Amino acid sequence: MKEKSLLKKSCLSLTVLAVLAMACTQVEESQLSDQQSLKSPDGSLELTFGLAPDGVPMYSLTKDGKTVVRPSRMGFELRGERRHVDQDFDSKTGWKYDAPVSLYDHMALQGVSYATKDETWDPVWGEEAHIRNNYNELTVNLKQLDNGRPMSIVFRLFDDGLGFRYAFPSDWSFRHFTIKEERTEFAMAGDHHALWIPGDYDTQEYEYTDSRLTEISTYIAKRSMWNASQTVFSKNGVQTALQMKTDDGLYINIHEAAVVDFPTANLELNPATLTFRVELTPDAQGWRGAVMTPFQTPWRTVMVVDDARKILSSRLILNLNEPCKIEDTSWIHPTKYMGVWWEMITGKSAWSYTDDFPTIELGKTDYSAAKPHGRHGANNENVRRYIDFAAENGFDGLLIEGWNEGWEEWFGNQKEYVFDFVTPYPDFDIAALNRYAHSKGIRLIMHHETSSSVWNYDRHLEAAFDLMNEYGYDAVKTGYVGDIVPRGLHHYSQETINHYNHVIREAARHHIMVNAHEAVRPTGLCRTWPNMIGNESAMGTEFQKDIEPIHVTVLPFTRLQGGPMDYTPGILETDLSITAPGNTAHMWSTIAKQLALYVTMYSPLQMAADLPENYAKYSDAFQFIKDVAVDWERSEYLLAEPGDYIVIARQAKKSTLNIASEGTARLHDARKGYQNGATRFCAGDKDVWFIGGVTDENARELSFSLDFLAPGKIYEATIYEDAPDADYESNPKAYVIRKMQLTAADSLTMKLARSGGFAISLKEK
Amino acid sequence: MKEKSLLKKSCLSLTVLAVLAMACTQVEESQLSDQQSLKSPDGSLELTFGLAPDGVPMYSLTKDGKTVVRPSRMGFELRGERRHVDQDFDSKTGWKYDAPVSLYDHMALQGVSYATKDETWDPVWGEEAHIRNNYNELTVNLKQLDNGRPMSIVFRLFDDGLGFRYAFPSDWSFRHFTIKEERTEFAMAGDHHALWIPGDYDTQEYEYTDSRLTEISTYIAKRSMWNASQTVFSKNGVQTALQMKTDDGLYINIHEAAVVDFPTANLELNPATLTFRVELTPDAQGWRGAVMTPFQTPWRTVMVVDDARKILSSRLILNLNEPCKIEDTSWIHPTKYMGVWWEMITGKSAWSYTDDFPTIELGKTDYSAAKPHGRHGANNENVRRYIDFAAENGFDGLLIEGWNEGWEEWFGNQKEYVFDFVTPYPDFDIAALNRYAHSKGIRLIMHHETSSSVWNYDRHLEAAFDLMNEYGYDAVKTGYVGDIVPRGLHHYSQETINHYNHVIREAARHHIMVNAHEAVRPTGLCRTWPNMIGNESAMGTEFQKDIEPIHVTVLPFTRLQGGPMDYTPGILETDLSITAPGNTAHMWSTIAKQLALYVTMYSPLQMAADLPENYAKYSDAFQFIKDVAVDWERSEYLLAEPGDYIVIARQAKKSTLNIASEGTARLHDARKGYQNGATRFCAGDKDVWFIGGVTDENARELSFSLDFLAPGKIYEATIYEDAPDADYESNPKAYVIRKMQLTAADSLTMKLARSGGFAISLKEK
Repeated sequence: MKEKSLLKKSCLSLTVLAVLAMACTQVEESQLSDQQSLKSPDGSLELTFGLAPDGVPMYSLTKDGKTVVRPSRMGFELRGERRHVDQDFDSKTGWKYDAPVSLYDHMALQGVSYATKDETWDPVWGEEAHIRNNYNELTVNLKQLDNGRPMSIVFRLFDDGLGFRYAFPSDWSFRHFTIKEERTEFAMAGDHHALWIPGDYDTQEYEYTDSRLTEISTYIAKRSMWNASQTVFSKNGVQTALQMKTDDGLYINIHEAAVVDFPTANLELNPATLTFRVELTPDAQGWRGAVMTPFQTPWRTVMVVDDARKILSSRLILNLNEPCKIEDTSWIHPTKYMGVWWEMITGKSAWSYTDDFPTIELGKTDYSAAKPHGRHGANNENVRRYIDFAAENGFDGLLIEGWNEGWEEWFGNQKEYVFDFVTPYPDFDIAALNRYAHSKGIRLIMHHETSSSVWNYDRHLEAAFDLMNEYGYDAVKTGYVGDIVPRGLHHYSQETINHYNHVIREAARHHIMVNAHEAVRPTGLCRTWPNMIGNESAMGTEFQKDIEPIHVTVLPFTRLQGGPMDYTPGILETDLSITAPGNTAHMWSTIAKQLALYVTMYSPLQMAADLPENYAKYSDAFQFIKDVAVDWERSEYLLAEPGDYIVIARQAKKSTLNIASEGTARLHDARKGYQNGATRFCAGDKDVWFIGGVTDENARELSFSLDFLAPGKIYEATIYEDAPDADYESNPKAYVIRKMQLTAADSLTMKLARSGGFAISLKEK
Repeated sequence: MKEKSLLKKSCLSLTVLAVLAMACTQVEESQLSDQQSLKSPDGSLELTFGLAPDGVPMYSLTKDGKTVVRPSRMGFELRGERRHVDQDFDSKTGWKYDAPVSLYDHMALQGVSYATKDETWDPVWGEEAHIRNNYNELTVNLKQLDNGRPMSIVFRLFDDGLGFRYAFPSDWSFRHFTIKEERTEFAMAGDHHALWIPGDYDTQEYEYTDSRLTEISTYIAKRSMWNASQTVFSKNGVQTALQMKTDDGLYINIHEAAVVDFPTANLELNPATLTFRVELTPDAQGWRGAVMTPFQTPWRTVMVVDDARKILSSRLILNLNEPCKIEDTSWIHPTKYMGVWWEMITGKSAWSYTDDFPTIELGKTDYSAAKPHGRHGANNENVRRYIDFAAENGFDGLLIEGWNEGWEEWFGNQKEYVFDFVTPYPDFDIAALNRYAHSKGIRLIMHHETSSSVWNYDRHLEAAFDLMNEYGYDAVKTGYVGDIVPRGLHHYSQETINHYNHVIREAARHHIMVNAHEAVRPTGLCRTWPNMIGNESAMGTEFQKDIEPIHVTVLPFTRLQGGPMDYTPGILETDLSITAPGNTAHMWSTIAKQLALYVTMYSPLQMAADLPENYAKYSDAFQFIKDVAVDWERSEYLLAEPGDYIVIARQAKKSTLNIASEGTARLHDARKGYQNGATRFCAGDKDVWFIGGVTDENARELSFSLDFLAPGKIYEATIYEDAPDADYESNPKAYVIRKMQLTAADSLTMKLARSGGFAISLKEK
């Protein structure tokens, strides 16, 4: 009772505050001078730019006349100059700065220019073979009165949304500056529904909440949160991509693109004005980015569509990134892999080798004299068993975690010299295992857990990549668990961002593909660096029972907007006590839903995450995982509602089915004509499609037409679906497999269990 | 008048405070339990250890019964555990910690052990060929009551001083901790005279002040200080090595040895109790070191002698370091070098190449299309001129600064990607110049200015060292000007210390000698890593008119205690307007004093810093620089008073005169039998000595016996001395050279001008 009345009181004050705040801070479009406007190619979106009476640049956005973004401020507040004073005794750090400097007001318009673009480009891999990039562009050139600092803002308006960035020209009087705060706002026109995770400087590993904007602070306080490195900075902070839905049916998605040499953005909501402000991740001193001109910031993006499927089919984020910078991409190849991994995640085995040592001093601790604890997963015998199984079932690669010294105390201490990335445990014969794998057509996938000691990783990077080249690894899974070292930096700080991008570039130089876990969520950089074939950057399968049914119905709208995720699906033994005695968790998913994820969660890198023995038990269902392609000619988004359900159909890409890279070709030669599962299933000139559908905690019936299939052709379909009595809680392992013939004239009505799904393979007869 | 009375008032309060403070914090030796004592091998020094009533470990030190260190506290305060809380909204950083933890009280003595050592070791290079290491050792093993944390303290007592360190054993319950504050104290027994520079987390580049301890805060506030990276943290902070003198004639020197994986220490004086406390350099979050057990801290040292010369002859700091870790040291060789350097320092030429660009983007800025500004020093023609001169005059190496892209805006902006260390300017033909140099028996010396972007340097280190190996460079001068990047770290922070040591180790792997400028002052690590042939870490010749006459009479007592300094002496044209028109500075030194520095400022790396054309003008004085050796069999400290004068005689080492390293031998082969100046002068079996003497701003007459020479032998002496009318201000360039025969039976009386000196070469007939 007491609590309730308190809540009532605070709601009242909130309302009063809201009215006050609205009165103080709102600027109407009619007050803006120097107005410029820009329309999307189809005319549905309109962007208006203007200057507020105090010279603050502002923008607003409408769709078909409806307000999407109310007039919103733009600009930055800068750090004052560092002072070198004679007697600097009262500052414990010795660092002092002049007062902050405005780069957000007293701006004058110097000129504008308009441009338009309509091109099509072909990604190295992707959801479709050809991507259209079509936008109208407005550039406004500003100069700050009094001091003459130049700043441009570039707006690109696509049919499905807006991107804008700040640009600073090369200028003798404005060469370097440090950002105290980015002031970019997104003023929403209503108290929209939102699917959000808490704003955080270090991790995206959260469950999603579905609430009104004004309810964020209430729900954020209720959630139990824990992560190895977690820095929730505000009660009203959320992360991008933020998926919203308006009461009149618009889908709005705020995100960013091309984060290079800049901190990552969160969003801080002012619930009184329903306005988000960009909250850049601070560095160790609290500053938010050091800039050298000429410079272009990342793009701030506002996607807005009237049909949720158009969010999934949007290529706005990729289009705002630079074209591919790798000249020869022949060594980059979509990959389906298994791993010595799930057995450690579930607790069946361990990354570590011994219990002998309280701490590990790399190079001093003598593992050869240590007593093995007997639970080390990455041992020669076990790895060979996985190689055999992966080869027999047509996989390309095998990830092995826990192969290198240091896992006994890798985590939680911000240990600087935590791994050297080159020294195997005594029971892991790196040369022999790679030889054996190659003889069976399997590439081992390297694992570099950095424990977030990122400077240490950079120190060892060249030697680590050289070792990979020496033994024939062409892909690495990197990991960033725990707080960043150097201490004080965050996973999203500018300097850490520069680290991730440095690793991608160095990997490209070594012809190495990268799959970064616990790094920053991607922002479309895989267009520029297609060797970045995967990222985690969200809760994946490893979270087991913490993955709620809603999760995979949200990710394609949020996390996946920036690039593919190594979600590691395919857990067919959903009862983890069978996999790892003592583990009481269950996957909150039916088996059919696990299969569907290979289609609904797009990635050129797909793992079959479960153990060989579990796949052997469910070999008929496993067949779908073996068959499914990992690169696509076309994708059709059949049904979608964020947080509820998703159904996607994808056409296998022919070109990559015929072994793309020379390196892989050599490996496949070694297999003596053996080809991987997907290649075998999709081989020849036949048209091949896969369809996947997933639902949240609600069972549902979903109907869709197959009119995307080639007319007149007959397809042999294999349907993997929830059994009639399937249920993610009570009966998750009940599935049915049926075969039938289908054509473009057919429609399907699928029944999905609670947290269920379905997967279909379609092959032209 | 007003100021004076204020001062009086504050003095009075200070006295009251002092009395109060003394009453509160003083612990008498009689109150200590579990007392242990240790004597030095000669019995003159006595160390007492005991526990205060609250279980705080304490130590005191006497010399011949006189108190040197009154009972002083030891221990640490630790950071509380990082908390992962559910709702961490009120911390902008997202980081929260439990309350600090004591590791300084409630200790119980678990046991003690005594040991003794008397050994002699031969350094790879040094002031003498054989070094005696003779000490008695006491180890006290402590355990903290209640929580059982183990901590040992190891005391080593030499005849000339004390070293002690904390040691933490491998322990399952005490594996990692983070230091909030080191609490080690040095309680002085009087208001001693001290030669000090301000405590700072980033630089040692200060002039020395000679004052009483209680006057430090007054004088520190009066000094004008400026440096590229300067972080004075307190009015009573000073740096080590701190040289003091007591009113009864003892010389006390507080320093540290073997700083590895730990922050560097300053000293914070409590003027009321005359007690110093160790002030460790913080990291970016304000913590002062992350420790993993087993661990040993650096040694805290208190040298105490009754004759200033014994400070200079002490090897206490070296002896407290680990033996050499480099197995094959044949590639390490003492070096005398010239440089394309002084012309940039004086302003005659520039490091940079062009004025075309406001900023530089390495890899994007096109230098080949840029208009040269015409002042670039490191151009092919100029470098060849230096190579010719250095070869003609018997030098080993030639440093070239400003050879690589990026110098147009290298400084002051904490620019992360500031240099790549591999890309020469268009007018620097790295292959041709190295070939040319090698054909003349000269090795080019690489220059890696990092601009303190240390993480960036580590990223490029392997490629940079590979380039050096490719072109035959075997030495690098590194530079750390400006604030550290990653931002928030200091030059002395643990993580930065780890960087310096990483570079030394990697350089050793590449057979590269390192001379680090603006890095942390050394602490004897050159014993362990003798490829660390030089450091700057103090004001050197580059400070020109800011080098006060006193400076070089202090450095051998302070900065040089930790290892050699690349002081870059030998400026014979003391009027800098002649070297670089427009430069109005004068060196505050006579020419004879410049020569003396090659003997008084010990270093295995000695530069002839002036320009070829200036040496040509003073070729008779230049002869001493050509002749002087850089490695020594024996050193005799003839006269010394810190801050006043120093006279040292050194016997050239025979072994290294016959080209030590294979690499150098190859180069010397290429010279077709040519040998460097020192080698030529010292060749054969003849006994060779050099004597140097310097004075401060006072002229003086100094007499000393030559009884260190071999009895019965006759030596041909060349004496370089101040002319009778020489004076550093009015007539610095007046010198006299005379030759005479001398024997061990002779004495010399030398007249030194104000800021003057003398240099003598002695060769057995």
